[in-house]
Amino acid sequence: MASSSSLVQPSVRLPSKNPSVRRFALVGRTNHSPLRLNPIRISVSASHRTRLDVQASSAPAMMEEATSGSRSSTVVDVDLGNRSYPIYIGSGLLDEHDLLQRHVTGKQVLVVTNTTVAPLYLDKVIKALTDGKPNVTVESVILPDGEKYKDMDTLMKVFDKAIETRLDRKCTFVALGGGVIGDMCGFAAAAFLRGVNFIQIPTTLMAQVDSSVGGKTGVNHPLGKNLIGAFYQPQCVLIDTDTLNTLPDRELASGIAEVVKYGLIRDAEFFEWQEKNMQALLSRDPSALAYAIKRSCENKAEVVSLDEKESGLRATLNLGHTFGHAIETGFGYGQWLHGEAVAAGTVLHLCLSVMAVDMSYRLGWIDDTIVKRVLNILQKAKLPTTPPDMMTVEKFESLMAVDKKVADGLLRLILLKGPLGNCVFTGDYDRKVLKETLHAFCKF
Amino acid sequence: MASSSSLVQPSVRLPSKNPSVRRFALVGRTNHSPLRLNPIRISVSASHRTRLDVQASSAPAMMEEATSGSRSSTVVDVDLGNRSYPIYIGSGLLDEHDLLQRHVTGKQVLVVTNTTVAPLYLDKVIKALTDGKPNVTVESVILPDGEKYKDMDTLMKVFDKAIETRLDRKCTFVALGGGVIGDMCGFAAAAFLRGVNFIQIPTTLMAQVDSSVGGKTGVNHPLGKNLIGAFYQPQCVLIDTDTLNTLPDRELASGIAEVVKYGLIRDAEFFEWQEKNMQALLSRDPSALAYAIKRSCENKAEVVSLDEKESGLRATLNLGHTFGHAIETGFGYGQWLHGEAVAAGTVLHLCLSVMAVDMSYRLGWIDDTIVKRVLNILQKAKLPTTPPDMMTVEKFESLMAVDKKVADGLLRLILLKGPLGNCVFTGDYDRKVLKETLHAFCKF
Repeated sequence: MASSSSLVQPSVRLPSKNPSVRRFALVGRTNHSPLRLNPIRISVSASHRTRLDVQASSAPAMMEEATSGSRSSTVVDVDLGNRSYPIYIGSGLLDEHDLLQRHVTGKQVLVVTNTTVAPLYLDKVIKALTDGKPNVTVESVILPDGEKYKDMDTLMKVFDKAIETRLDRKCTFVALGGGVIGDMCGFAAAAFLRGVNFIQIPTTLMAQVDSSVGGKTGVNHPLGKNLIGAFYQPQCVLIDTDTLNTLPDRELASGIAEVVKYGLIRDAEFFEWQEKNMQALLSRDPSALAYAIKRSCENKAEVVSLDEKESGLRATLNLGHTFGHAIETGFGYGQWLHGEAVAAGTVLHLCLSVMAVDMSYRLGWIDDTIVKRVLNILQKAKLPTTPPDMMTVEKFESLMAVDKKVADGLLRLILLKGPLGNCVFTGDYDRKVLKETLHAFCKF
Repeated sequence: MASSSSLVQPSVRLPSKNPSVRRFALVGRTNHSPLRLNPIRISVSASHRTRLDVQASSAPAMMEEATSGSRSSTVVDVDLGNRSYPIYIGSGLLDEHDLLQRHVTGKQVLVVTNTTVAPLYLDKVIKALTDGKPNVTVESVILPDGEKYKDMDTLMKVFDKAIETRLDRKCTFVALGGGVIGDMCGFAAAAFLRGVNFIQIPTTLMAQVDSSVGGKTGVNHPLGKNLIGAFYQPQCVLIDTDTLNTLPDRELASGIAEVVKYGLIRDAEFFEWQEKNMQALLSRDPSALAYAIKRSCENKAEVVSLDEKESGLRATLNLGHTFGHAIETGFGYGQWLHGEAVAAGTVLHLCLSVMAVDMSYRLGWIDDTIVKRVLNILQKAKLPTTPPDMMTVEKFESLMAVDKKVADGLLRLILLKGPLGNCVFTGDYDRKVLKETLHAFCKF
């Protein structure tokens, strides 16, 4: 059996088809120099229609936005041909009613949310959808909160509501909540009448930097996460950073784990920014959060644009997820937050941090300074760095075999290789080293 | 509220991008002359790689194929850019193992079939998939037979099997059965791991001429048919006309109802051919069936190529379905076969025949000779021409309101207009006439 390996080039030159389009480009780099991000980003203030020229260097850009005085927002575009869409990022965007309304099709809207988020933001969203629009009717379905409800039975409640209220093909679904709500609402929108429009309003950091962007939707199966779903793109993603004010610390840290991932696998400069600004992120400095979200979305948007259906490059975004998902499944959905499991998965073995890093280091693919920096930043972010005791080597191996990244029986992993900010998605590694790492991190 | 109307032109000139490609083209016609189909069809014998030049006139073409002596097959291409695929039509194609194998990706195959079809053809299909392919493993899931099992609970059994047997992203799903199996297997393939390859092997006339072609997949909801699903195209459709030898008479008649539809809405010459050859179809003359399937698939392939997602033209294929679905839903799934309900729906009101025809006639859009011809051909085909007693006007109106063709609350119908072979998809009709037709066909 041939093993497959693909070195992922994190710095690619994107042809700028149209200079007036809001885009960003990364310049090339030589093999051993540190990754240099030189983004030509043009950010548009959606609310005030003024331009903000964001600098290439991260921190000054953040400060410039933070001190600009007026309430400003940024747009990151996901370039997918006729399925392209904007991600609006900013404070108070839920009060910019026009922003949401311009992406609503038809006269019927179904808001899908959960019991935690509904009391906080549902009225605000309904107001934003109906303000000055007497012909628009809004229905809502409030699901129980938590990963353990991300299943087909709960999804059916969305279909029940949509059908009982006689929504038609032109209607719009709105996902209001975290990653679970976004994934379920997105899949419901993909499958209802074989596809209706939908809008993402992510209210957790995790959803804002990861799951709301890129069109992956779905539900879990008792034997594995996200095994049933669709690639389905929203009309827009609206990120009101004010919603993070109500997010519990633990969920904030989960989101930060995803932010760290982008730095680690493809954006060394962003990783360095995080090392300096982790405290600001943890203390919810609005401008630090807005900057981290924007840069994360830019990284994700670029990857998704290049590889929507995950034939190669996009798989690198799963750094840590093979192990993370194995932990979540083995432990029972919802006991750990997604981000925590991912961080622990990293520590265990694979990806986001210590586990992937450990294995990469054991393979001789990275040097020990990266190992130390990863451990350090995860501890700063107060993310767990060891898996639960009940995760045995055997359990890991069994669960990983079901993982979607198994192709023709070959387990391909995302591992770090070379200077910080580089990774590979490969099945070409020494199986003994995988076992060594598993044994190093599991008690049994 | 503006009503919308769109006159559907059944005869369009398709640019022939590449004359060597297997295509067909329809020439234009003047307004009041009868529709003239002048197909430049090039049919390739898939099994023997010899060309058969099929004549424009229907009957001679049929005879030529039937008397050609050798076992021959025809290919109809569905042109959808990078999602294009062939429909193979012929006798004994399940014995042409290479034909099936060339469309299998990966090394794992899941055959989805039902308790009726499995004893007849499952072994044959497994043999076709594995002959000379020791590395290919085939799993199968055998679902209960019938429209009443076309639901999410039954669909989950397909996912269970796929996950338990650890199928990966490169696997291939094969739908072996009628329309219910094709729709469910297709939706399962669309949603499993967010999309895997699949192949359609339809074994009923209904599935061969309609549901297996065009990528509509899905399951029913207790409140309506096909409300949950996806547009998802197969790798190929393989129609072995020998499978019709085991089809019950009642199901054959259901398929013939769909064949009649193509003639009625867009191919007057095909309708005339049916008027002359209905007895041959009912007595299962192999060449008559093969010709009817091919010409039906050509009509459907053309419509689907022009309007994959049903923004307009494709909706005309739903002729009769709004009423048909209403009958099926009101009566309970599975009590009537799909085709029978469609035919009765026609009689009732809308589309395939008498109901659509009745309303079209009441509107003054067609003359009475069409009404007579439609009644006549349906009676020849032994299809029911009256709805069940329990279908009241009130029930019809309530069920139709849920129909997907309701857009912004406006019920658009497919109605005949002009000479035979012409129809419109429109919401611009006198509501009183709809009521008149309903009252004419319902006892209560």
